[in-house]
Amino acid sequence: MAYNVLPLTKLIEQFERLPGIGRKTAQRLAFYVLSLPKEKAQQFADAIIDAHEKIKRCKTCQNLTDKEFCPVCSDDTRDKETICVVETSQDVIAFERTREYHGQYHVLHGLISPMDGVGPQQLTIKELLSRLTDDHVKEVIMATNPTVEGEATAMYIAKLLRPMGIKVTRLAYGIPVGGNLEYADEVTLYRALEGRSEI
Amino acid sequence: MAYNVLPLTKLIEQFERLPGIGRKTAQRLAFYVLSLPKEKAQQFADAIIDAHEKIKRCKTCQNLTDKEFCPVCSDDTRDKETICVVETSQDVIAFERTREYHGQYHVLHGLISPMDGVGPQQLTIKELLSRLTDDHVKEVIMATNPTVEGEATAMYIAKLLRPMGIKVTRLAYGIPVGGNLEYADEVTLYRALEGRSEI
Repeated sequence: MAYNVLPLTKLIEQFERLPGIGRKTAQRLAFYVLSLPKEKAQQFADAIIDAHEKIKRCKTCQNLTDKEFCPVCSDDTRDKETICVVETSQDVIAFERTREYHGQYHVLHGLISPMDGVGPQQLTIKELLSRLTDDHVKEVIMATNPTVEGEATAMYIAKLLRPMGIKVTRLAYGIPVGGNLEYADEVTLYRALEGRSEI
Repeated sequence: MAYNVLPLTKLIEQFERLPGIGRKTAQRLAFYVLSLPKEKAQQFADAIIDAHEKIKRCKTCQNLTDKEFCPVCSDDTRDKETICVVETSQDVIAFERTREYHGQYHVLHGLISPMDGVGPQQLTIKELLSRLTDDHVKEVIMATNPTVEGEATAMYIAKLLRPMGIKVTRLAYGIPVGGNLEYADEVTLYRALEGRSEI
C-alpha cells in the first residue's frame, strides 16, 4: 500500500490486537480516535495507563479492585458462609447482575489446562484454601464454565475441599431460560432431564 | 452493580464511546487491555497520543500524514493531471488498494450536510480550488459516496470547477462485482442499465 503513515499504522495495529477486532474495524477505530479532540484522546490513553497502575487483586478474593479489598469483601452485610468460585472478574460482574447472590467470591484467574501449560499452581487455589482455614465458610459453589477445563478445575478443587468437611456444590446444568428445546444439544438436554424438579 | 472499580469503569466507558462498540464488547476489550503486560498497555496508550501528535494534514491534498506532504503528493512518478476528490482518508486507502489509480487525491474531510450544520466552508474546497490555479490538472474525479450528501457535494464542487475549464467526472454507478441482480435495489439497477457499455 503506497499510503502508509507510520503512527497511524501503529495505532491500527494496536486495535487489531484486541480480541474480536479485525483489520477493518481496527482501521475504523483508529480513524475515530484520530478524529477526537486532543484532550479526549489523552483521556483514553490515561484510562489505559490508570487502569493498569491502579487495579490490583483484592487481598482476600483475588478479584480486581483499586483498593486493598474489593467492594464485595469489604461489605459487612454480605453472607460470609458461602464462596462462589469463578474463573474471571467478568464472571463476578455477571453474578452481581443477577442481584440474587449475596455471598463471597473467589476469582481463580484461569482454569487448569495442561494443553496451555496452566497447572493448579498458576491459579489462586492456594489463596482459596487459606480462606477456608477459619470456620466461617460452610459452602463453596464451583461456578466455572461448563467446558472441559471448567469441569476439570471444579473437580480438582472439589477433591481438595472435601476432606476439609466443606460442602462443595456446582451450578445447575439445564436449558437456558428463553431458549428453545429444539436447538438444545443432547448433553444439555440430558442434564436438564436428569436435574428435573417437581413443580 | 455492587462491583464497581472506578479505573476499570472509566476504561470500559472509553471503549464504549468508540463507534460500533457496545457495553459487552467494551467490557471484554477493557479486561483484555488490563490483562496485557504493563509495557504493552503503555505502547497502546503511546500509540494513541503519538498518532494524535504526529499526524496532520498534507499541505497539498489534505490527506492525513506524519510528514509535510503525504506519500502520494511527494511521489514524482504519479500522474499530476488527475485529482480524485474523496470524503475521508479511508477512501484514499480504498482507492490505493485497487492499485489501478495513479493520480492525485484531495480529501474533503466531510460532506456538505445542512442537517448537520456542515457547509462548504468547513470542507477543504478552498484548498482544492487553489490546487487548480496552475495548468497541471486536466480532470477532477468526484469520488464521494453515492448518498444524498455525497451527491450534493459532488454537484456543488462540479459547478465551481466547470467555469475553470476542467473536466469533472463522477464514479460509475452500477451493480457491484460479485453482487446478485436479484438483491440490487431499483435505483442501482436503473443506473446500471443506463450506464451499460458495449462488450
